[in-house]
Amino acid sequence: MRASLVLSRRDLDFLLHEWLQVEQLTQRERFAGHDRATFDAVVDLAAEIAVEHFAPHNRLADENEPHVVDGKVVLVPEVAAALKVFGEAGLAAGTLPEELGGMQLPQVVSKAATAWFQAANVGSSAYPFLTMANAHLLLAHGSPEQVETYVRPMAEGRWFGTMALSEPQAGSSLADITTRAERCEDGSFRLTGTKMWISGGDHELSENIVHLVLAKVPGGPAGVKGISLFVVPKFLPEGEGIGERNDVVLAGLNHKMGYRGTTNTLLNFGEGVHTPGGRPGAVGWLVGEENRGLAAMFHMMNEARVGVGLGATALGYTGYLHALDYARTRTQGRPPAGKDPSASPVPIIEHSDVKRMLLAAKSYVEGGLALGLYCAKLVDEEQTAPTPDERAAAHTLLEVLTPIAKSWPSQWGLAANDLAIQVHGGYGYTRDFPVEQFYRDNRLNPIHEGTVGIQGLDLLGRKVVAGGGEGLRLLATTIGATTARAAGTEWASFAEDVDAAVARVGEVTATLWSAGDPDATLANATVYLEAVGHVVVAWLWLEQVLAAGDGTGDFYAGKRAAARYFQRYELPRVGPQLDLLASLDRTTLDTQPEWF
Amino acid sequence: MRASLVLSRRDLDFLLHEWLQVEQLTQRERFAGHDRATFDAVVDLAAEIAVEHFAPHNRLADENEPHVVDGKVVLVPEVAAALKVFGEAGLAAGTLPEELGGMQLPQVVSKAATAWFQAANVGSSAYPFLTMANAHLLLAHGSPEQVETYVRPMAEGRWFGTMALSEPQAGSSLADITTRAERCEDGSFRLTGTKMWISGGDHELSENIVHLVLAKVPGGPAGVKGISLFVVPKFLPEGEGIGERNDVVLAGLNHKMGYRGTTNTLLNFGEGVHTPGGRPGAVGWLVGEENRGLAAMFHMMNEARVGVGLGATALGYTGYLHALDYARTRTQGRPPAGKDPSASPVPIIEHSDVKRMLLAAKSYVEGGLALGLYCAKLVDEEQTAPTPDERAAAHTLLEVLTPIAKSWPSQWGLAANDLAIQVHGGYGYTRDFPVEQFYRDNRLNPIHEGTVGIQGLDLLGRKVVAGGGEGLRLLATTIGATTARAAGTEWASFAEDVDAAVARVGEVTATLWSAGDPDATLANATVYLEAVGHVVVAWLWLEQVLAAGDGTGDFYAGKRAAARYFQRYELPRVGPQLDLLASLDRTTLDTQPEWF
Repeated sequence: MRASLVLSRRDLDFLLHEWLQVEQLTQRERFAGHDRATFDAVVDLAAEIAVEHFAPHNRLADENEPHVVDGKVVLVPEVAAALKVFGEAGLAAGTLPEELGGMQLPQVVSKAATAWFQAANVGSSAYPFLTMANAHLLLAHGSPEQVETYVRPMAEGRWFGTMALSEPQAGSSLADITTRAERCEDGSFRLTGTKMWISGGDHELSENIVHLVLAKVPGGPAGVKGISLFVVPKFLPEGEGIGERNDVVLAGLNHKMGYRGTTNTLLNFGEGVHTPGGRPGAVGWLVGEENRGLAAMFHMMNEARVGVGLGATALGYTGYLHALDYARTRTQGRPPAGKDPSASPVPIIEHSDVKRMLLAAKSYVEGGLALGLYCAKLVDEEQTAPTPDERAAAHTLLEVLTPIAKSWPSQWGLAANDLAIQVHGGYGYTRDFPVEQFYRDNRLNPIHEGTVGIQGLDLLGRKVVAGGGEGLRLLATTIGATTARAAGTEWASFAEDVDAAVARVGEVTATLWSAGDPDATLANATVYLEAVGHVVVAWLWLEQVLAAGDGTGDFYAGKRAAARYFQRYELPRVGPQLDLLASLDRTTLDTQPEWF
Repeated sequence: MRASLVLSRRDLDFLLHEWLQVEQLTQRERFAGHDRATFDAVVDLAAEIAVEHFAPHNRLADENEPHVVDGKVVLVPEVAAALKVFGEAGLAAGTLPEELGGMQLPQVVSKAATAWFQAANVGSSAYPFLTMANAHLLLAHGSPEQVETYVRPMAEGRWFGTMALSEPQAGSSLADITTRAERCEDGSFRLTGTKMWISGGDHELSENIVHLVLAKVPGGPAGVKGISLFVVPKFLPEGEGIGERNDVVLAGLNHKMGYRGTTNTLLNFGEGVHTPGGRPGAVGWLVGEENRGLAAMFHMMNEARVGVGLGATALGYTGYLHALDYARTRTQGRPPAGKDPSASPVPIIEHSDVKRMLLAAKSYVEGGLALGLYCAKLVDEEQTAPTPDERAAAHTLLEVLTPIAKSWPSQWGLAANDLAIQVHGGYGYTRDFPVEQFYRDNRLNPIHEGTVGIQGLDLLGRKVVAGGGEGLRLLATTIGATTARAAGTEWASFAEDVDAAVARVGEVTATLWSAGDPDATLANATVYLEAVGHVVVAWLWLEQVLAAGDGTGDFYAGKRAAARYFQRYELPRVGPQLDLLASLDRTTLDTQPEWF
């Protein structure tokens, strides 16, 4: 597959350098070993490996989903081969510190590299990216010994990691998990329970699998306040390698509509199949403090959720590029004016409705990429900005943007995939073209790592009210700085529209929270999430055209066209949504279950 | 599978009897042999056969898609078994006249029966429904001999039929078809060419397959004015059975994302594999007049497109019913107010966001069913209304509603399927639950029988301007009669909103056509289609609640809740769309292909 069908290097360069000016990060101590050349080299390397080793087996892995033979998970061999190349290139440790063998890259550059893999083959790329998220969590909350034991082999690409939160009876409701962790005399714990939806939960791709597991220590508080975090490896560590088999057993593989290259598992902990140390129960060690597991997990959740959003954008992006390629080469029909049946058919990109679909998709995927990279850079700012105030501000802004960075691309990246099928017509519905797989793959993203509904409750129920509403105020101030720069330019009317929408979001938020009834306030949290998401992406389109300045040529003309599209076709969608919210509508609340 | 998961008999009864009062059709000569009991019996029979014989192999046929062995198409045997039951029950000829062995049912009753099969198993049901469309076309445009030769065995369920329009190089652009039909001395034709996307194009399910083929007679006018219609059977008829093999050859099966139970084929005509009568070329006979083939095909297109829309609604409907069932039985989490982690989790239907998703889906699928049945009844009115004026009015209204009846459920039925997955969470993304298949199956509907873009051009470019705009005027008058009835009721504000939207559609339509440039007028035809579609469905929700009157109980309360949802959450979407259209926005027109 051509690299130009996977992701746009030109757009990444624009976003990273012309807009976000990531090279400035090298003035900070953590990134001082880098310069623009090393950043670009990593993105080049990622693009090359993604195109050469990941894209070619994307369909194959979809058609040959993981299955179990003699208790072991069998994948097409191309997955292991690609991950070997990935690991050997050092990409598994892109953002990890040098002392652990990492490249010590900024998140924003790492995510730009990551996007190539997600676009090329989201199924195979999930293994290392889950491992990275796991490593970051251990790095932030684990003991030095845990970091040495688990993070180093993950950084080397020898061990993989998972995040084991959900349970069959408690998907989004972590308060209801029942996995138990009983303390042993030696300070370790024995875990018993069942975890569901664990991606990468079992396979033969790595020497070991490091599960980070949420569980409850008996006697702790009810609900989320009694959740602790444990590291539970498939094989107990021994020296620098592995020892005894732990009692973590594959209980089943989930058969999905898409994302099939990633094993998704039901895991039993402490079922008694293995008896490590001669005793029943899966051996685990507490990470961080007891009963503070959810906070630790959520500490890394921003990064994980931004990553999911970027994956959704990447899938939408590659779908868009395929649709664009098809629309340029497929000839059919003629435009309405002066329609002459004896004239040759035109490339379908010349039809207005095809241009509309492509502009919509472009505005979604380039807007989503801007959102994801902006948030990734906020992670860097949160960790490395020069002053505590700047770090705190980055944290606050990231908190409020995270539910949007997760959900907006999940919705609109999928919409781009839908449009990519439509541009292809009947061909897009066949498995001879890749766009139908992107659509199936991307349908997972509004579900995992917190559903759309959960993100809406997070945004309206927590993020915009935290700290007396400082998150939303900071967002408004940040957007206002952009719109102020647009005054007097050709983008003044767009800036006015954005300003008006931001002001209205502020009013509506106040109205919602004045209801005095959390049920009424939160009844339409998803609508709120959608509206604020569109306002944020409108702002980022304004940012992009301001960064484009008076740049000439097709690339900049394309940015301007997509920005105009977003202003005229997309931003106005929020008007009715905000009107609905302002009315404190009770339709959903008042509808009784038995009426359906 | 329970019938209550396939379709709602209660809703069908409401729509057919309480709202559309279909029993009144029995006062007309064609339907005089029927009464409410016979109508209900047909729907009962359809429900029973759909649930017992079609639903059980829906997943099986998806997982074992058609393949070719020794030149023959192999399907899972359950398909043939189900179609045998269907044929023996006489359902293949539901709407056909009694003299051909048909039941002479109204379209509206037939479509209500049909919806059960589309909801239960859209892949298997496509064979007889394509056959019915074929039979209706021959009945309207074929010679008496053609009717006797082809329609009778189709009515008996022994022969199946197809519609062969598209070609690989000319999907939506029929002007560019290149299949040639050369006249022979005996009045027959010999066809040569390739047809693409032919559903039911080859299989071993029936004794014969009757293709209705669009082709060009050499020397005719260019473009669509040179298209003629031919009947081209797989086996030449002989007596009441079949004779020599015709030269129609399966060139390939398309492998689709969904709708897999229906073979979808590439067919070669006149490839020379068979030489009927000792000569090359596929033997065909002209149906209707030469060069009038497209008009004949379009005569039946209203019915076919309404049928596609109903299929999209049916798939959305069954997805909604599955989501509803899941939401009532799955417990998880607690509502925000007074959240107590020690309280038991509630059925998820008690969460506002789940109710929002279910209300949205309900409003889409019940709205879509109302739209489809209303249009089916217009087919009956067009054919059997007492006076020529009434028949002409029904025709005019059907013409303007058809692109909406096709595209609106294709978009929103699919949206209902998307919501059904979301209500199920991770489970909905697995193949252990049926909702992911409904979503994949339904994704075809915005593509076939005229894409969404084609429907938009049809509505704005043809239907609303035909006859000096009489279609839109009649629609407005018809809607106005409904809103007038709502004055003074609890639905007065909904009626006012609908009136305002209808008035605005009229203004915007005039503005668009005043542009003096067809490219500018039609640049956003798809946006126009979406907006008018939502206005029409809002009207039909108003119709439904007026029909519900002061009915008490959960069913009527549900209708009112869904209507309120549609008024408050859905109808307002059209405001920004109509604003955009009124501005004669040129964003898509002015964007150059090289800017992408």
